[in-house]
Amino acid sequence: MRLSRYFMPILKENPKEAEIVSHRLMLRTGMIRQQSAGIYSWLPLGKRVLDKVNAIIREEQNRSGAVELLMPTLQSAELWQESGRYDAYGKEMLRIKDRQDRPMLYGPTNEEMITDIFRSYVKSYRNLPLNLYHIQLKFRDEIRPRFGTMRSREFLMKDAYSFDLDREGAEHAYNKMFAAYLRTFDRMGLRAIPMRADTGPIGGNLSHEFIILADTGESEVFCHKDFLGFDIPGKETNFDDVAGLKAIFDKWTSRYAATSEMHDEAAFNAISEGDRLSARGIEVGHIFYFGMKYSEAMGAKVLGPDGKEHAVHMGSYGIGPTRLVPAIIEASHDENGIIWPKAVAPFDAVVINMKAGDAACDAACGTLYSDLGTAGFDVLLDDTDDRAGAKFATADLIGVPVQIIVGPRSIANGEVEVKDRKTGARETMTVEAAINKLVANR
Amino acid sequence: MRLSRYFMPILKENPKEAEIVSHRLMLRTGMIRQQSAGIYSWLPLGKRVLDKVNAIIREEQNRSGAVELLMPTLQSAELWQESGRYDAYGKEMLRIKDRQDRPMLYGPTNEEMITDIFRSYVKSYRNLPLNLYHIQLKFRDEIRPRFGTMRSREFLMKDAYSFDLDREGAEHAYNKMFAAYLRTFDRMGLRAIPMRADTGPIGGNLSHEFIILADTGESEVFCHKDFLGFDIPGKETNFDDVAGLKAIFDKWTSRYAATSEMHDEAAFNAISEGDRLSARGIEVGHIFYFGMKYSEAMGAKVLGPDGKEHAVHMGSYGIGPTRLVPAIIEASHDENGIIWPKAVAPFDAVVINMKAGDAACDAACGTLYSDLGTAGFDVLLDDTDDRAGAKFATADLIGVPVQIIVGPRSIANGEVEVKDRKTGARETMTVEAAINKLVANR
Repeated sequence: MRLSRYFMPILKENPKEAEIVSHRLMLRTGMIRQQSAGIYSWLPLGKRVLDKVNAIIREEQNRSGAVELLMPTLQSAELWQESGRYDAYGKEMLRIKDRQDRPMLYGPTNEEMITDIFRSYVKSYRNLPLNLYHIQLKFRDEIRPRFGTMRSREFLMKDAYSFDLDREGAEHAYNKMFAAYLRTFDRMGLRAIPMRADTGPIGGNLSHEFIILADTGESEVFCHKDFLGFDIPGKETNFDDVAGLKAIFDKWTSRYAATSEMHDEAAFNAISEGDRLSARGIEVGHIFYFGMKYSEAMGAKVLGPDGKEHAVHMGSYGIGPTRLVPAIIEASHDENGIIWPKAVAPFDAVVINMKAGDAACDAACGTLYSDLGTAGFDVLLDDTDDRAGAKFATADLIGVPVQIIVGPRSIANGEVEVKDRKTGARETMTVEAAINKLVANR
Repeated sequence: MRLSRYFMPILKENPKEAEIVSHRLMLRTGMIRQQSAGIYSWLPLGKRVLDKVNAIIREEQNRSGAVELLMPTLQSAELWQESGRYDAYGKEMLRIKDRQDRPMLYGPTNEEMITDIFRSYVKSYRNLPLNLYHIQLKFRDEIRPRFGTMRSREFLMKDAYSFDLDREGAEHAYNKMFAAYLRTFDRMGLRAIPMRADTGPIGGNLSHEFIILADTGESEVFCHKDFLGFDIPGKETNFDDVAGLKAIFDKWTSRYAATSEMHDEAAFNAISEGDRLSARGIEVGHIFYFGMKYSEAMGAKVLGPDGKEHAVHMGSYGIGPTRLVPAIIEASHDENGIIWPKAVAPFDAVVINMKAGDAACDAACGTLYSDLGTAGFDVLLDDTDDRAGAKFATADLIGVPVQIIVGPRSIANGEVEVKDRKTGARETMTVEAAINKLVANR
């Protein structure tokens, strides 16, 4: 992408309304724009990151055997009356009447709708296990939306729903998502710690929140330091291996970890002092096993091998992509701006033309831009006529992992400078060497 | 994808509520499910097609230089009061009040919001031209939603918005989208004919609908037969070439073509009888140039090279992906089911195991499934224990382009049967030859 043809409205001033660093940086880099209280547009730079986050979530959901569909945002009130949550949900549910005066709502979550889909088609245990997910907008009418997309009203959620014949199957389904979540967050450069959690309005009795540690987190969390060193399940993880996944679950729940709602002071104090970690955290995922709560209320039953009808055991599993983006920034930035982990960076590299209009600079930039593009990299070419200093500041601010700086003096020797955004390390090398370096570090 | 682990609820009976073939086939193949009047879930098979359609739209929008962002679904009423459309839009606009009693709406389109984004950031002609698009859900509270996702209330729309300093620039922006649309529909196997159209509530004086001919279309259309043979702009089209794009526009508007609203009987009758085409059509895209309608009302101005402020010239450009899917089916099916054009098929091939549990069949299916997957193909493996006849019927119904049939008798000779869904042609060959055939025809 040539910056001269892109839409990346960098703000020069720090926006006053932003209380936390991720919100400030997302506004400054032109990633998002607030349209109404708690309702945001994702501008092109932000959209790119969001797409990369969604792609990782999708890959790991698919790897675990979950199947993607897409449910609508608007739901009929009837479904929620069936489960009993229509009245119970309270003011966070955005209630709507259509032109025929039918009561509708903007889905805050989809347990009811997916249960309705399930009961319409699935009649036999032979079609189980099943895990269906979608990545779709939700709306929760928070009284105090804040921190940008960290706590917005219209937000994106990946929500998966598992269906099993019995509790044993449901636990395996839970463990699949548990392992998939560890992999998902790790791929984004985050260490997420699963913590026993309250089930809230979803219900059920087994639930974990995945929390990343960050000073600006809204929750107070308590855990054992061992979590910082636990291994992440590998790419080769066999999601059909019941015992193998149980072992991952057991390992990752073998130490104390709890949010403040579930905190047990005595248990925490039993940990040796040097191993105690008390910090603030951001919830980036939440998984639930709630048994037959919805299947019984809504009649989602299958014929079992015993020839009898059984209400299915269900779980639901959420990740908030529009919250993950700021969470990643909270975990990875410095005083100059964002430092994107490679896997979610909006661009793989930025090529900075220090003197647009200079024939040698333009030619070298053209070569870099087109050769790197051909090699499959997403490259931003800063071909604007801004001052070099402003270009450097922008490149640091938007946090693209690699900067390739093309200036008139060095290009006279056929050389460019390659800067690592994270370490700040700079190296001078030929254009060809710069391309090879990116390919080698892919 | 192994069918035994997938969720593809095939209906055995023709659903009564479906009046047109695409709606019937989308329900029967388990692509969609109605959740409320005019509100649909896209089940996994449908979601796959929708993703492929969106990917083509996105590629062609990007190729033309448009830049993707993502605006929210809910908008504040204030924006629409500024443009004067809040009262004018009528009952199709879904009006909502949030918990603070603020008037909101579910966006039926985004002219106001994108104009608001533009005016917040862009102040100089040097940042033009600009074309911003998103693919986002819209809601229009149609009094009579029908024909499945062909005319639904909650639907997906790709809407692009162009901003230019003057009319000349805006016309080039219009021609870019015109050419991009021709390419987009062609890649989906559709011949879309641009027809002069009424501008409706969007406003403006230059507008084309892109119409595909189909007996079940809602519009009556009239055009010259030459449109069926016109060349589609190639991949190498230079979208910066003002004269070149103008030539494409001129060519594709050189013959009579109009929807009934714009029909001129006399002009149509002036065409020699053998060249007249009077048919029914489905609108799959609609583009508008509306000048300064929104920029003047909402103060979207830039400094021109003359140092003065100018309201920008705008256009908007819509494609409905959730309508395109049924439109493609209307254009491509037979009595046995859907016939997907390769580019939008949910899977590239289906491997049919005629005798799941037979060691030789299972082994050959496993090889085909894994080797084709490694070669980059999306393969559906029918590993269920349904009867062979039911499997053949399902494969024809869901319309995957290539069927590879693995039966116990032929696999004893190391052979499988490869069937082309469209032509019905069958060939017997080795497993290896079948894989090579797919690779060769990629």
